[in-house]
Amino acid sequence: MQITGSLEAIADAALERDEIAWDFVEGVTTEVGPRQAGTEAETRGRVWAVEWLTKHGFQNVADEPFEMDTWVPGDIAKAHVTGPFPQELVVQPLGNSAATPDGGLEAEVVFFRTVAELRAAPAGSLKGKIAYISHEMRRAQDGSHYGFAGPARWVAPGFASQRGAVAVVIKSVGTDYHRNPHTGGTSWGDESSPIPAGALSVPDAENLERMFERAGDRPITMKLEMNPRRIGKQTSGNVVGEIVGRNPDLPPVLLACHLDSWWNAPGAFDDGAGCGIIAAAALNVAASGQPLRTIRVLFAGAEEVGLFGSTAYSKAHIDEPIAVGLESDFGADRIWRFESNFRESNPDLHAKLASSVARFGVANSRIVASGGADLNIVRDQKGAIIDLQQDGTRYFDLHHTPDDTLDKIDKAQLRQNVAVWTQVAGILANEERAIKTGRAIPSAPATMGE
Amino acid sequence: MQITGSLEAIADAALERDEIAWDFVEGVTTEVGPRQAGTEAETRGRVWAVEWLTKHGFQNVADEPFEMDTWVPGDIAKAHVTGPFPQELVVQPLGNSAATPDGGLEAEVVFFRTVAELRAAPAGSLKGKIAYISHEMRRAQDGSHYGFAGPARWVAPGFASQRGAVAVVIKSVGTDYHRNPHTGGTSWGDESSPIPAGALSVPDAENLERMFERAGDRPITMKLEMNPRRIGKQTSGNVVGEIVGRNPDLPPVLLACHLDSWWNAPGAFDDGAGCGIIAAAALNVAASGQPLRTIRVLFAGAEEVGLFGSTAYSKAHIDEPIAVGLESDFGADRIWRFESNFRESNPDLHAKLASSVARFGVANSRIVASGGADLNIVRDQKGAIIDLQQDGTRYFDLHHTPDDTLDKIDKAQLRQNVAVWTQVAGILANEERAIKTGRAIPSAPATMGE
Repeated sequence: MQITGSLEAIADAALERDEIAWDFVEGVTTEVGPRQAGTEAETRGRVWAVEWLTKHGFQNVADEPFEMDTWVPGDIAKAHVTGPFPQELVVQPLGNSAATPDGGLEAEVVFFRTVAELRAAPAGSLKGKIAYISHEMRRAQDGSHYGFAGPARWVAPGFASQRGAVAVVIKSVGTDYHRNPHTGGTSWGDESSPIPAGALSVPDAENLERMFERAGDRPITMKLEMNPRRIGKQTSGNVVGEIVGRNPDLPPVLLACHLDSWWNAPGAFDDGAGCGIIAAAALNVAASGQPLRTIRVLFAGAEEVGLFGSTAYSKAHIDEPIAVGLESDFGADRIWRFESNFRESNPDLHAKLASSVARFGVANSRIVASGGADLNIVRDQKGAIIDLQQDGTRYFDLHHTPDDTLDKIDKAQLRQNVAVWTQVAGILANEERAIKTGRAIPSAPATMGE
Repeated sequence: MQITGSLEAIADAALERDEIAWDFVEGVTTEVGPRQAGTEAETRGRVWAVEWLTKHGFQNVADEPFEMDTWVPGDIAKAHVTGPFPQELVVQPLGNSAATPDGGLEAEVVFFRTVAELRAAPAGSLKGKIAYISHEMRRAQDGSHYGFAGPARWVAPGFASQRGAVAVVIKSVGTDYHRNPHTGGTSWGDESSPIPAGALSVPDAENLERMFERAGDRPITMKLEMNPRRIGKQTSGNVVGEIVGRNPDLPPVLLACHLDSWWNAPGAFDDGAGCGIIAAAALNVAASGQPLRTIRVLFAGAEEVGLFGSTAYSKAHIDEPIAVGLESDFGADRIWRFESNFRESNPDLHAKLASSVARFGVANSRIVASGGADLNIVRDQKGAIIDLQQDGTRYFDLHHTPDDTLDKIDKAQLRQNVAVWTQVAGILANEERAIKTGRAIPSAPATMGE
């Protein structure tokens, strides 16, 4: 049952009760599950999302398909230390990994503590070897250690390939100690050929490192077997829906998330929760009275595998101006900081928005918002962006793993997200003036998907 | 470097530093890994343990082999919900599970909230169905919810088989929310035939339960495929070592743990830590001066799969009296309670021991100690038993899962265990008189392994 009242009253009420965001994330994780882009599971996810948006009263609901090159993980992923301490390690392929030969490959493992150490290795020095790359990622509220450790996944496999390695395994880019590796995209770039590339769980990676300490002069050998493959062009799509405004000719407010997840992850935190939050906020704003501007929700497809949905959406709609864009794609924990890219160019609106969410424990910030992965269209239009920064302390415990399940969502924190989004989206959707952005917008963060 | 000094000084020093217990558990998890009874991995574990004990100065080190029927898990374990919400659930076989037909079996799932509900189902009512059994286990400091929820694994599969089920899946008997099912032994008893039996991880089990809520009248169907098998008689063994006392004719103090683990679990908490703790305590006592009585460590084999090592040890040595038995097999968290079975029959010794460890935060208790799984010989001899109860709050997060890795061990808490064990073992090994046990000893807890 939707509460009615003023925007402020509805936002306050969202703190105490939410039936929409939770229903979305419970529904998509229970009735769809993992939904990797380009697979039938993502298709089921889009059908499910279209039905859900329609049932909840969104207008102009559509599934906008696009084609994309598709990689799938296969069904074999084994890493066996063959000597001197034989045992299985838990491994999963990284996105865009090549396959091993049938039956696997066995080679000596060479240990690199950092990507920098790997880069310092001479050309050809890894010929016939498996490179193992570590890092020292720690939990951080702002998630900034993803940028610190992420290169071990994003680019190190390519560096290993360039130096002749037959395969590469990395310490998962994650902060938990469970035996569920963190997958994610890898960029081979133009200078390296894909080789088999896998992520070990953090406990397995640390076990491998202890083996190096204990092995003395004995080489560590590993047999690796994985069978991912490319399956050519497949269809993905962006799902959209609208709360149509009183003046549909005004540029809309764009609320974005992504619907896809990696094959191994049910995608509760990443990013079922985000889609639930933005949809709940849009419906809450509508319940406070039809807004001036249209609010459009964009459930992007194929974010994880390379931001294909964001790119396709921008290409298709670049000539349709967006008033302001916001994305929720960092879990479901509490929002703690408000950022925009118009604090200097439109200080009144920035201040009004920031002060409107202070009661929810959200601080103002001078950081210039750059937007999430699915806001390409707004960046391409050099438009206005707001980042409602969530607490990312737990995010990389779960990111791209099987542990990204519904039970990880704290209902109280989810509701705080919905309250903040309701408040902000409601003000923006009733803003009469265009938002000027007076300075260059930083480019999107250089991450391989979120 | 071993510190020397009085027993008390050495126990106190153990609180601050430990190089022995940690070395054992780090070594066995890194250099051996999972070591299921009856497999080559357990054999490697015994060889490793014999070398380790010898290297650390234990005397009379031996591997005492025995034969046992052996079950192995196979390499296929898949549970796929085929309708109405198709997706993979994470499953692992339970010990003594039968295999599915090649290619799996598909059937409707029938949901039982409790073992009692299942028992109330009429004979034949599950014909052609897969039974799913839930429970409501919670974390408990004394671990007592294992007794509360354990029957879902120990006996419910047999009840399902008796009622005609073609297979059974249970909610893991565990308290964590990670996608790593908890395996463990199942008893089919005399009245039921083994059927395929698997554990879902807790998040997967709860997802399945939500499917029942959301499916309305539609049946939930599952395809299950597992290929465990029995491989006949195999060799396991008990590894023993001694600190020989000044009077080796006196009955020894027996410190027990188990060396084996399930195939999926590196066995850091269960029970690498226990073996490390007792070995460190024995060496610490020796460092305070040769004790009056011999201290014998028993690293039992084949505990998980049915207490075969404990049974074999008792059978082989039943005529050799044990002065007192203690076991460490409940992780590596802090000891918080002291229990014996001679508080009434030998109040002075009980009080002396209890007060000796009060400084480590260990409370006295009126609970009558019953000993762990590997103390069959002491129970069979109706001998003296002490339980140094560890905090089990986290234990069933990790128990029988891949997450039972070295990183879970808190070094400060491990050291507290070593300190307490050093103090207690030192007093016992220098006790001149026999310990009378004045009352019946409760039978071992009815668990399928620890």
